[in-house]
Amino acid sequence: MEKKITVLPGDGIGPEVIASAVEVLQVVGKRFNHTFHLAYGAIGGAAIDQYNNPLPDETISLCEQSDAVLLGAVGGPKWDQNTPELRPEKGLLRIRKHFDLFANLRPVMAIPSLLGASPLKKEVAENVDLMIVRELTGGVYFGEPRMRTDDGAIDTTVYSRKEVERIVENAFHLARLRKGRLCSVDKANVLETSRLWREVVEEMKKRFPDVQVEHHLVDSVAMKLITNPSHFDVVVTENMFGDILSDEASVITGSLGVLPSASIRGDNFGLYEPVHGSAPEIAGQGVANPAATILSVAMLLKYSFGLKEEAAEIERAVNAVFEDGYFTADLARDGDRVLTTSEWTNKVINE
Amino acid sequence: MEKKITVLPGDGIGPEVIASAVEVLQVVGKRFNHTFHLAYGAIGGAAIDQYNNPLPDETISLCEQSDAVLLGAVGGPKWDQNTPELRPEKGLLRIRKHFDLFANLRPVMAIPSLLGASPLKKEVAENVDLMIVRELTGGVYFGEPRMRTDDGAIDTTVYSRKEVERIVENAFHLARLRKGRLCSVDKANVLETSRLWREVVEEMKKRFPDVQVEHHLVDSVAMKLITNPSHFDVVVTENMFGDILSDEASVITGSLGVLPSASIRGDNFGLYEPVHGSAPEIAGQGVANPAATILSVAMLLKYSFGLKEEAAEIERAVNAVFEDGYFTADLARDGDRVLTTSEWTNKVINE
Ligand SMILES: CC(C)[C@H](C(=O)O)[C@@H](O)C(=O)O
Ligand SMILES: CC(C)[C@H](C(=O)O)[C@@H](O)C(=O)O
Repeated sequence: MEKKITVLPGDGIGPEVIASAVEVLQVVGKRFNHTFHLAYGAIGGAAIDQYNNPLPDETISLCEQSDAVLLGAVGGPKWDQNTPELRPEKGLLRIRKHFDLFANLRPVMAIPSLLGASPLKKEVAENVDLMIVRELTGGVYFGEPRMRTDDGAIDTTVYSRKEVERIVENAFHLARLRKGRLCSVDKANVLETSRLWREVVEEMKKRFPDVQVEHHLVDSVAMKLITNPSHFDVVVTENMFGDILSDEASVITGSLGVLPSASIRGDNFGLYEPVHGSAPEIAGQGVANPAATILSVAMLLKYSFGLKEEAAEIERAVNAVFEDGYFTADLARDGDRVLTTSEWTNKVINE
Repeated sequence: MEKKITVLPGDGIGPEVIASAVEVLQVVGKRFNHTFHLAYGAIGGAAIDQYNNPLPDETISLCEQSDAVLLGAVGGPKWDQNTPELRPEKGLLRIRKHFDLFANLRPVMAIPSLLGASPLKKEVAENVDLMIVRELTGGVYFGEPRMRTDDGAIDTTVYSRKEVERIVENAFHLARLRKGRLCSVDKANVLETSRLWREVVEEMKKRFPDVQVEHHLVDSVAMKLITNPSHFDVVVTENMFGDILSDEASVITGSLGVLPSASIRGDNFGLYEPVHGSAPEIAGQGVANPAATILSVAMLLKYSFGLKEEAAEIERAVNAVFEDGYFTADLARDGDRVLTTSEWTNKVINE
């Protein structure tokens, strides 16, 4: 297989974790006889510095010519005081919208050797294996009007039936490939967009009789993600609720530093990035944890290229290195062997 | 002191926990020489059954003639299929709006003898003592337009500067009376209403130089409430974020069943209710836990009547009964003494 990937290292530890992930990608390519052509572009703070634009046209056209995008992280104190249009995260919002990446997949799984770092009791966190499917290009993030008024401000949550249908359908397909359970999250006792959402789920479920569906209110899910997270398989929700719930879910297993994400659209194109941020305070020291970005490569291979075996091989290698007790500084506890970014990456490659 | 209180038992276990709380209230009244005149009204499902209206005019006028309102709980499967206007929670939304109860106070504290029931590790949960201050009468809950459109649906988040100012000011005052720390929660990197919110907090903080202020994004607070909940003192946020975060916060210490809440406006009038729901599955059995409603009476005495000593006395008694190892069925674990609602209430009264 021959594929083009645009690589956007971004800010902070972005370039370091990307370097590790690209190494792993190339090793997998060699071993399984694929050729991955990489093109590097700028996004976020780095792009603001270079182009005065968090998502320059050059980057957009690189991505347009690619089969998938691998992103590091964006943001940092240097750009925190910029106007909204010149802030690093605007690059993220715009790339999502431009490429219509409407489905954000955020898996959260318990990794036995990391459970010690979880704020939850072991028995609560240990069987967690869920995926949050967040609508990413609609809702209050992009709805108009959004503005100051004479005496205050307004934002607008907008969803078309089509927008809801495509994300819900996506989630049904994912549930079918996993444990066959779908939890749809809304605030149907208050919001009109939530009532539409619930209606669509009710209609769609007729086409997926093998998937077990439940509706939950967002406030109740915010509780249950803590009291009983292993209850969940696939959780589907709109953009703003998904932002909150996927971040909440990301800390329950103690593996925040190792969680990957995918932002995809109907076809095979997608953008893959670690869930963690750009961690400017440790950037450039060679100590960052590349696991989340390496696992994002696995998601890329699986969702954009259909390379399930290759993806599984990466996931297996990462887990094996953790089980062997090798950690980067962020995860190591007393007595653990602390590896640098490149040492840890080599362990994965050897696996 | 002579005061009028409207009592709205509501549905499910509402009438039982209210009976306990009223007993405690009257004992406190006798002991401290106050006269509390009670008037009972209907709300929620009970009011739908009786008046075909979840908040009948009779109830509104009772409340208007009172100094404070004590509520049990509303809702149950019997009314779940009703149209939005005839659902029990509509009574709640309408009473909040009608009486302009714009500030919802939700304290969350660790109770040592209940920490075993927390999903969090003991060392994470043990020092929690926070209060979420949720804006309760604005935002997307009441903003217009909210409707179906040709191809979908919309909701509108609306805040006037005045609405933001009064809730933020309230939170500053509360922070001053507590540990002097205020965390303001918004999504200022995306929402216009959040930028207004942040501006107001920045202006207001000049008037409260003794309060230490920080701004956090809602997604980041959703994480931190789990990883480091004892970081927080007063947390102030808008209606929808507050709904999600206050429910999330309510489960971290294992004391969900015992948490009270207050919904107040500028003057002394307020509505007080337990955080837990109507628990229809155990209603009528005399086994419900009345602690949250009893503690809501303490909030009522403190916030509406300024009776701090009386409130502290109730809180002390409730804690003492827990420390002595007396629990209702919901909280009891192997070996604990299980008390009925009225037995447990008597323990509190004896204290
Ligand atoms: C940076 C911000 C705009 C973004 C979002 O809210 O979507 C981030 O929190 C995320 O979840 O990727
Ligand atoms: C019942 C519902 C409308 C209500 C709300 O969302 O405000 C409830 O969840 C609450 O928090 O009191």
